[in-house]
Amino acid sequence: MDLTNYIFGVAEWLGIIAFSISGAMLAVERRFDLFGVITLGVISTLGGGIIRDLLLGQTPPRFFYNYRYVLVSALISVAVFAVAKRVSGKNNSLGIGEKLLKLNMIFDAIGLGAFTVTGVQAAMDFGHEKNAFLCISLGVITGIGGGVLRDMMSQRAPAILVKHIYAVAAIIGAILYYWLFIMAIDQRICLMAGMVSTVVVRLLASHYRWGLPKAY
Amino acid sequence: MDLTNYIFGVAEWLGIIAFSISGAMLAVERRFDLFGVITLGVISTLGGGIIRDLLLGQTPPRFFYNYRYVLVSALISVAVFAVAKRVSGKNNSLGIGEKLLKLNMIFDAIGLGAFTVTGVQAAMDFGHEKNAFLCISLGVITGIGGGVLRDMMSQRAPAILVKHIYAVAAIIGAILYYWLFIMAIDQRICLMAGMVSTVVVRLLASHYRWGLPKAY
Amino acid sequence: MDLTNYIFGVAEWLGIIAFSISGAMLAVERRFDLFGVITLGVISTLGGGIIRDLLLGQTPPRFFYNYRYVLVSALISVAVFAVAKRVSGKNNSLGIGEKLLKLNMIFDAIGLGAFTVTGVQAAMDFGHEKNAFLCISLGVITGIGGGVLRDMMSQRAPAILVKHIYAVAAIIGAILYYWLFIMAIDQRICLMAGMVSTVVVRLLASHYRWGLPKAY
Repeated sequence: MDLTNYIFGVAEWLGIIAFSISGAMLAVERRFDLFGVITLGVISTLGGGIIRDLLLGQTPPRFFYNYRYVLVSALISVAVFAVAKRVSGKNNSLGIGEKLLKLNMIFDAIGLGAFTVTGVQAAMDFGHEKNAFLCISLGVITGIGGGVLRDMMSQRAPAILVKHIYAVAAIIGAILYYWLFIMAIDQRICLMAGMVSTVVVRLLASHYRWGLPKAY
Repeated sequence: MDLTNYIFGVAEWLGIIAFSISGAMLAVERRFDLFGVITLGVISTLGGGIIRDLLLGQTPPRFFYNYRYVLVSALISVAVFAVAKRVSGKNNSLGIGEKLLKLNMIFDAIGLGAFTVTGVQAAMDFGHEKNAFLCISLGVITGIGGGVLRDMMSQRAPAILVKHIYAVAAIIGAILYYWLFIMAIDQRICLMAGMVSTVVVRLLASHYRWGLPKAY
Repeated sequence: MDLTNYIFGVAEWLGIIAFSISGAMLAVERRFDLFGVITLGVISTLGGGIIRDLLLGQTPPRFFYNYRYVLVSALISVAVFAVAKRVSGKNNSLGIGEKLLKLNMIFDAIGLGAFTVTGVQAAMDFGHEKNAFLCISLGVITGIGGGVLRDMMSQRAPAILVKHIYAVAAIIGAILYYWLFIMAIDQRICLMAGMVSTVVVRLLASHYRWGLPKAY
């Protein structure tokens, strides 16, 4: 139980850090001001966990019991803002934008993987361990929730709809974490496997632009 | 009680099928790839029921206990995608687009009617039978919830705001279902009356473009 | 306790009235028809309170027990529509649009302040009085929730992201209300202080265009 809590905490913090960076970067790109950047950073970070806890009936959501989540997310957003300001003064070439998009995508993938794992684990902690479908679904929704909220608020088509194999990466990570956990594998391995598989699938799909058919 | 469950199940399945088709069609039109089509189909289908259960305090929402909902919704989305691909190869005239919009609207109306009924019934099952306002409101929110989510995610102004008499159709269906149920009418009749009235009002309003005033 | 209920009720009604006007005005500007105006007025009004109650685990949300909230919100929306129709016939100069935006902003600020206070109070009523972070966060989310929903539904970037010091105004009001309440100050004073501080900070920031840095 202590180990479970520890693993859960590690994954949650990883997700918070990664989504804060990703949300703040998007807000900078959208030219929001400092508070807009902080707000989008915080909301895209807390969104997934709040949705997860609401779906489980854990009210008030866990994030409300720990001010450090919001504090860290806000500080990271400020840091992203400061770096962006510095970089934008020095260099204005087009290459930067391309690199930033790729960087943002990597952090988004890490957040996706980390929160997916927390969603599966939270469902199991709530006694739904035997319901594989519930645990995996909740993992996926937790993983994609914050990003969907972030994209909808910044008037962008949600990544899960347009990006290559976004939801699929979360599904793979969730299944792997759940299956290894049920097999009584060391939880640290479950965590690594669930997260890394999500991130790798997501990045490979993006890098090789794994083509999926379109109707038109 | 068995009959109630049966009626509830029928309405829920009808809503799932209709909203899957409607969501997937919209995604095809927006030129999302195959996974985007499946994702929007599934989300617009499950959105209404998840919102309904969250509002009632039924956590985790019922959809998480039944993988068949997601499976059927995903399969229907794939089928819509396949048909769209086939049709788009053969025929590219403008008339098709017009007809598809109308078809999409019909399925959306059926989903609206079916989910509205499940919302009213779920509220009554939870012991709120004497609170007419609650039952009817919950019916309307369940009916419109999935569609609102679908439209917001695909960056379209929600149908309830711009389409002729959208929310009103759900209100009429919810009132009719509630009222007939309270009058102890056979539930199969309640279901038909609630659903059909919603669909008919919605389609009539759309066909005759029942004009509502605008301020400008 | 009676006084608490009274204060809570006053703030809630103020928020309902203010957000109904603000939501309906936005819908008129977007050229929605009469039902679209009513729908956006009602949703932006009830959104904040429903989100608040869901986060607290108060299901079904309190709004479902009182049809008068919806009724008043709908009537106000109709009134806004009627006034807009009358004004638009008489005067079509550009100056009007500017003034309306300012008026809309004032009502939005009042709604923000009022709902923020109800969020803090609701969290305390639920026994979370000693958790300052939870009470204040819930206040802020309740305050901004309806507006975020309104803006996302009308395809506008949410005010909290782009407007000068929007979330900050809610945070200040929430902290002030919570702190005065804990100091056992007369609740009528807490209410006034929490609301007025939010509205004043918001309006001052808007009027003087308190500049916040942007990264680019």
